Amino acid sequence: MTKTPLAALLAAALFALFPAQAQQQAQEQAQSPSEIVAAAPAEEWRPVEPQNLLIVRLANGAAIHIELAPYFAPRHAQNIRTLARAGWYDGASVYRVQDNYVAQWGTGETDRPLPDGVEAVPAAEYATIMDPDMADLVAPVEQGGYAERSGYFDGWPVGLVSEEGETSAALVHCYAMVGVGRGEAPDTGSGSDLYAVIGHAPRHLDRNIALVGRVIDGIEHLSTLPRGTGPLGFYEDEAQNVPIASARLAVDMPEADRPRFEVLRTETETFRRYAEARANRSGWFVRPAGAVDVCNVLLPIRRAS
Amino acid sequence: MTKTPLAALLAAALFALFPAQAQQQAQEQAQSPSEIVAAAPAEEWRPVEPQNLLIVRLANGAAIHIELAPYFAPRHAQNIRTLARAGWYDGASVYRVQDNYVAQWGTGETDRPLPDGVEAVPAAEYATIMDPDMADLVAPVEQGGYAERSGYFDGWPVGLVSEEGETSAALVHCYAMVGVGRGEAPDTGSGSDLYAVIGHAPRHLDRNIALVGRVIDGIEHLSTLPRGTGPLGFYEDEAQNVPIASARLAVDMPEADRPRFEVLRTETETFRRYAEARANRSGWFVRPAGAVDVCNVLLPIRRAS
Repeated sequence: MTKTPLAALLAAALFALFPAQAQQQAQEQAQSPSEIVAAAPAEEWRPVEPQNLLIVRLANGAAIHIELAPYFAPRHAQNIRTLARAGWYDGASVYRVQDNYVAQWGTGETDRPLPDGVEAVPAAEYATIMDPDMADLVAPVEQGGYAERSGYFDGWPVGLVSEEGETSAALVHCYAMVGVGRGEAPDTGSGSDLYAVIGHAPRHLDRNIALVGRVIDGIEHLSTLPRGTGPLGFYEDEAQNVPIASARLAVDMPEADRPRFEVLRTETETFRRYAEARANRSGWFVRPAGAVDVCNVLLPIRRAS
Repeated sequence: MTKTPLAALLAAALFALFPAQAQQQAQEQAQSPSEIVAAAPAEEWRPVEPQNLLIVRLANGAAIHIELAPYFAPRHAQNIRTLARAGWYDGASVYRVQDNYVAQWGTGETDRPLPDGVEAVPAAEYATIMDPDMADLVAPVEQGGYAERSGYFDGWPVGLVSEEGETSAALVHCYAMVGVGRGEAPDTGSGSDLYAVIGHAPRHLDRNIALVGRVIDGIEHLSTLPRGTGPLGFYEDEAQNVPIASARLAVDMPEADRPRFEVLRTETETFRRYAEARANRSGWFVRPAGAVDVCNVLLPIRRAS
């Protein structure tokens, strides 16, 4: 497995005081979550499609890689592709960073005309009809809030709700998920302004705003930004805004230059065992929790060669 | 109510695209969580006791205020007081910052002799016997992991577990909670090295390590630190360590110089209504969640005059 920051993060599921101890620990522990993932055959990983991979580059050179989720929010994903291609985000900035909540970026201008082809008020893509049997790994993931059950579908964290005989799946506001800022309903946000979760999952936002993807690499370039001191974490002075150089889709880059990522397929036995192991930690742990929050499963993601 | 960063954070529970809209929103919305808190009478707040208030000052001047939790971890809290008074943390550093997990500080030296009066291996204060009727506001907070119920006790987030006819309460690893680093069990950590949660609550650590308090002001000075690129988020080069100037108890300062904080009493009707409102957001929200994760209640904390 290619060593990436996120792979390191997975290995890091083990909590220990000193690295030497941690290393020894990892060796003693049979089938830790990271060992289970390391043993996954190549076919248990799916690529992040280049048309769904948005690379946001800050002016300081830092790259934030975002996977879009067109299955759940097709119109918002398409808007973001169109906005990126029109150069909308080039010269935009991160203008809001609220501790334990979100980092938000875009132009922050409500009156700036949107590029051709961008839908100003897309449908409210807050949940998707789903056959509950399609969701992977509902147990041992615990339920959360409004949701009867939580789990993963095609690599995405979802909460399942049944209403009037119909089950729907809402993407969950886990750490690093990316959503579309909006004003008052029925405004659903065009994608002109986006946010990423940088704290404990704000589940009260689920089904209230369109999640459209997640940061798969580089979230630390957002989570370490200075917190805004204005209301809701907005920077009080425009000079504090963190400028964005560009946002490009991988599919629009020459093939050789495209960053490539893979995520562990969540319909696999490996993912089931991995989540089980995350719910029932051994070794250093004295008492396993017996369950794991859907946002604490931490989907395995790696750079592909 | 004095305007503090945390009070601002509470007001910020409302998620909106632009501050002007958010303000208008807050005015239109009847009995928002922050309005409920703002109306609380003085007696519904309890002071943070000066013997439980630890002020960690980074070399860059930033102050991190920590409330200790002696009810849950009396020996670890006492160790930390003794370590602070002996100057143990002065010249120590933050040497590990793992994204979406923890920031950890201390000396990182296992062989450095502990000051007189510090217990090297205190009892494992991972849970406390508790009459379940004593915990405040068990509903509508949803359950989490191992815990049958989660709620608050005297301002602290707890998970309740019944085993062999006995109920115990474990502090919960919510954002900003502070714990005591340890090596292999039966080591429980002396308090020489501490960590704070800077991401989604790692509930698998509950009952496996001693939580001993929480950051009540200044968590952003830890959450914005550069992430370590070594295994488990350790800084690879000692030069990256973030130096700590001092750690002092408020009780050891002249009265006039002591910082003062208050937390909303969780046994009050105000807190119950506040949590209800956090679970059932209105106004901007299209669909209330109907429940709130114990770590998303966000205990109201304010600076006292």
